[in-house]
Amino acid sequence: MVRWRSVPSFQRHVFVCINERPADHPKGCCKAKGGVEVRDKLKAELAARGLSKIVRANNAGCLDQCERGVTVVVYPEQVWYGGVTVDDVTEIVESHLVNGRIVARLLLPDQPQLAGKTQLPVLRA
Amino acid sequence: MVRWRSVPSFQRHVFVCINERPADHPKGCCKAKGGVEVRDKLKAELAARGLSKIVRANNAGCLDQCERGVTVVVYPEQVWYGGVTVDDVTEIVESHLVNGRIVARLLLPDQPQLAGKTQLPVLRA
Repeated sequence: MVRWRSVPSFQRHVFVCINERPADHPKGCCKAKGGVEVRDKLKAELAARGLSKIVRANNAGCLDQCERGVTVVVYPEQVWYGGVTVDDVTEIVESHLVNGRIVARLLLPDQPQLAGKTQLPVLRA
Repeated sequence: MVRWRSVPSFQRHVFVCINERPADHPKGCCKAKGGVEVRDKLKAELAARGLSKIVRANNAGCLDQCERGVTVVVYPEQVWYGGVTVDDVTEIVESHLVNGRIVARLLLPDQPQLAGKTQLPVLRA
């Protein structure tokens, strides 16, 4: 008999694009720009802080922002970050995922769903 | 010069697990259970209804519910569906994604984030 695990109820769910396109594609792709490394570091940071059960990182297919480098979207708030590198991961975790402070320098432009907010809920213990 | 496209502001963003495990893995995997077909039909239905700019379907890596068949999570509401087949896609689109009515028969159990809600916002034109 299969033992069901409980369904997750993540406080935040982060999707990292690791879509791969041919090397000569004019848009480039997030995989070539380091998407896998960003996802791996994000997962490792969340695990190291004991947050894996309340914040999840997943890879995603194309998020349609290929020109902007590695694209990351955080739900439920739908915050879009672009050009993310492994060097940005700790700040995203510490500032946004834990403390709810949007990382302004990485935001993609024109995000009307945020309605100008810079502070989102802090992670509950 | 690269021409930036505007950042999407999706009303709903649907992630379909297409994770692949070895054929003899005891958990099975969503790819073997039809994840790719579910995602493809979902994308096709959204496109056919002219909704691709306000509702996006993406593939995702492992959502950690492998035993339950193809797992789908809808944001921003974080509704988890399990055991989804291509035959369920039209109902998910019509009922949930367009009209905000959760498809109760496909819900994974124990989703405290829903607080018992069965009706979510209707898609805005």
